[in-house]
Amino acid sequence: MPSTIENTPRARDEVDAPFFPNEPQGPTVATSIPGPKSKAAANKLNQVFAGNAVAFTANYHQSCGNYITDVDGNVLLDVYAQIASIPVGYNNPTLLKAAASPEMASSLVNRPSLQNFPQHDWMSILETGLLKVAPKGLNQVFTALSGADANELAFKAAFIWHQQKRRGSYSAEFSQEDLESTMLNSAPGTPDLSIMSFKAGFHGRLFGSLSTTRSKAIHKVDIPAFDWPQCPFPVLKYPLEENHQENEAEEKRCLEAAESIIKNNPKVVAVIVEPIQSEGGDNHASPAFFQGLRDITRRHDVLLIADEVQTGVGATGKFWAHEHWKLSTPPDMVTFSKKAQTAGFYFGNPELKPSKPYRLCNTWSGDPARALIFRAIVEEIERLDLVENTVKVGDYLYKEIERLAKKHPGQFGNLRGKGQGTFIAFDMPKRDEFLAKAKTLGVHIGGCGDTSIRLRPMLVFQKRHVDILVDVFDKLAREY
Amino acid sequence: MPSTIENTPRARDEVDAPFFPNEPQGPTVATSIPGPKSKAAANKLNQVFAGNAVAFTANYHQSCGNYITDVDGNVLLDVYAQIASIPVGYNNPTLLKAAASPEMASSLVNRPSLQNFPQHDWMSILETGLLKVAPKGLNQVFTALSGADANELAFKAAFIWHQQKRRGSYSAEFSQEDLESTMLNSAPGTPDLSIMSFKAGFHGRLFGSLSTTRSKAIHKVDIPAFDWPQCPFPVLKYPLEENHQENEAEEKRCLEAAESIIKNNPKVVAVIVEPIQSEGGDNHASPAFFQGLRDITRRHDVLLIADEVQTGVGATGKFWAHEHWKLSTPPDMVTFSKKAQTAGFYFGNPELKPSKPYRLCNTWSGDPARALIFRAIVEEIERLDLVENTVKVGDYLYKEIERLAKKHPGQFGNLRGKGQGTFIAFDMPKRDEFLAKAKTLGVHIGGCGDTSIRLRPMLVFQKRHVDILVDVFDKLAREY
Repeated sequence: MPSTIENTPRARDEVDAPFFPNEPQGPTVATSIPGPKSKAAANKLNQVFAGNAVAFTANYHQSCGNYITDVDGNVLLDVYAQIASIPVGYNNPTLLKAAASPEMASSLVNRPSLQNFPQHDWMSILETGLLKVAPKGLNQVFTALSGADANELAFKAAFIWHQQKRRGSYSAEFSQEDLESTMLNSAPGTPDLSIMSFKAGFHGRLFGSLSTTRSKAIHKVDIPAFDWPQCPFPVLKYPLEENHQENEAEEKRCLEAAESIIKNNPKVVAVIVEPIQSEGGDNHASPAFFQGLRDITRRHDVLLIADEVQTGVGATGKFWAHEHWKLSTPPDMVTFSKKAQTAGFYFGNPELKPSKPYRLCNTWSGDPARALIFRAIVEEIERLDLVENTVKVGDYLYKEIERLAKKHPGQFGNLRGKGQGTFIAFDMPKRDEFLAKAKTLGVHIGGCGDTSIRLRPMLVFQKRHVDILVDVFDKLAREY
Repeated sequence: MPSTIENTPRARDEVDAPFFPNEPQGPTVATSIPGPKSKAAANKLNQVFAGNAVAFTANYHQSCGNYITDVDGNVLLDVYAQIASIPVGYNNPTLLKAAASPEMASSLVNRPSLQNFPQHDWMSILETGLLKVAPKGLNQVFTALSGADANELAFKAAFIWHQQKRRGSYSAEFSQEDLESTMLNSAPGTPDLSIMSFKAGFHGRLFGSLSTTRSKAIHKVDIPAFDWPQCPFPVLKYPLEENHQENEAEEKRCLEAAESIIKNNPKVVAVIVEPIQSEGGDNHASPAFFQGLRDITRRHDVLLIADEVQTGVGATGKFWAHEHWKLSTPPDMVTFSKKAQTAGFYFGNPELKPSKPYRLCNTWSGDPARALIFRAIVEEIERLDLVENTVKVGDYLYKEIERLAKKHPGQFGNLRGKGQGTFIAFDMPKRDEFLAKAKTLGVHIGGCGDTSIRLRPMLVFQKRHVDILVDVFDKLAREY
């Protein structure tokens, strides 16, 4: 039945009804940022903990929705969201309700070893939360504690899968030589295998994940790493509409490099890739690139791991960013953390779960308390239709910045993220100065790569917030 | 003022007053273990998660103190405690109170990036919890998410410290070559350095930590590892009193091996060791051994990391097991997790914290919710004097098993852990059968190594529980 209602644009008030009735109407800047109290707190903290990277000291009890409050009384519109990890606003009531539940109390106080003595309601927590939003085709999950932990668990699954294939079957026994040599960290039991990652990619900072991370030297220098191969990632030219041919050639070049590395290097068992390279500068590639990569991995029987730690959970206008790729077969594994507030990897092929126990295992194997928070996040996303909200608000935000880019030539360069929800980025001359000045005008944003600004609002970011953000951008741009 | 009260032995009733008034009087076994409901739940769970290592499915809402309840209605005396990770009993009221606090709600819902935007009360949470029980001489802490994560963070701190020393100063700048080569995982920016660990040691299962783990092949096989050196760990003969000379020679041999590896291998920047090798079989060494190891590390300017993930937080009759060593200088770093319910490493030398930010950093850098639980655990340990309780109960438990060993020759062999609180282990013929049968009589215990049984009761384990446990042991021993 054709609906006229559907085609009637919603009234502005309806569109913009605030998700948080008590949210501040706008930022309040009371001091420099960090202010004197923030600085004093950071200096004190630095005596016993890591305080040398503190931007400001927050008061989360007083923060609300999209606004973060600091100890100096500044109230900032938060478009960075704890490095893209707060999904549905500070002090979200649905999450506070989950935090006060008897299930939460038990999960906090009686933390189980999930693979050995799982709690009676673990299955139901998975089904109503983590698995409810599982990527299409991937109906199983291993839980973990952080994005890096999730990626390393996925790497281990990949290595185990590959070696069992080499032995001839999923449940083949180990040779005595395997069992003895691995105790010495030697082949054949400890194989010299690798994970291929992309230049400028970021996958975490533990020893295995850091070996695949290629974003910044400061994260890597002085830390031993595996000699794993790196593939170029497309460097696209913007605007995309005007550089179609060149970008297609660039993606082709990178795909050829990927296939060449994999073909010439039988040690590669898996490829890990972010749908949008985030820490490394918000680098995008087209669905065709990822389709090509999927084809190459299938052709050479190598696994494809989509690292959705930063892109996952709604911010790109899909629940999982790899949905934009429209693959004919899903990635073999999808890792997640950050906005999920828990971590892990999804998979579909049951043979990615080792046939023998204790191989992808550890004392806790996740944290039910954090899984309960994710369940509440999923509930909130559904209740407020937040993925759709991100599409709509992202579209508005993109157009507004596009407008600014035209208005201020040489600024807001290489605008990217069209059609990718609020996952928007641009380049800015004197980037760090721009970020610092934005705080003095009440908006808290973050950078990535060397010259980029990445917008990472929460899923509850609304047009009203876009307007505030864009006004600040405009003001700052006029000063340049 | 000399106190007569202090010297008056407490009455039996006073000594044994139950910490949990509502705790069951003893175990109840209703079905086989795992029972039909446990099995069905595990099979269902295995379809979407890891269910092939499930011993039984628990109902933590119904568990209390030292007793764990399963979904079949079995109530077991839990002497394994989620692989040594539950410190003060299921549904401990002090912890439940902390779980219901406004600080907890905020920490769960507003999870911060602790190194960038710490919460205003993070310093106070550290001071009243984690730092209140910091090992002597180590007044600073980096927080983490698991024992493996904590160990890898400590490894990274060690590598960074070492390389800065090589550059000539704590805050020396990197060379351009360092910065460029590390992006390719190549020297000199990515150095070929190592951590020395001990045979049969266990330090976690991430890629760096797994490279130092030497307990069981099943944890290591098929996973790439760094080629890091392994040192023999003393294999002592029991009873210690009768093998003094031989054991002294064995420890000397291992210390010589340690010094030889370090001297001949300038790549070694740190040594990691457990006070008692737990997963690897509950292998002990004397304080003299650890003193000797500390001397060697000092002599060669190599760091000593004490891995107290399993031994820490009271179970050995000291808050930290390395207090038993009576070192003249503390270990450089002490890592912890499990019974702390959070994780991290303590350190004293401020130069173990990198001079530049973002080097030992990640999105969350710990979890305040879990740090709040640790604070409540510390409060409970102090309130009930639980470290002292462990000394007393451990002493009683050790003597009771010693009695059983005399009564049943050939069983309860190599009894170890005298004077080490309840951290007691012994060898048993047909170990796995023994463990399974113990469950049918209502006690849940765990193994380690190939033939050992490790007792890992909670800190709230009392004489009343020892009596139940020992009766079961006696009954089982008579059947052999």
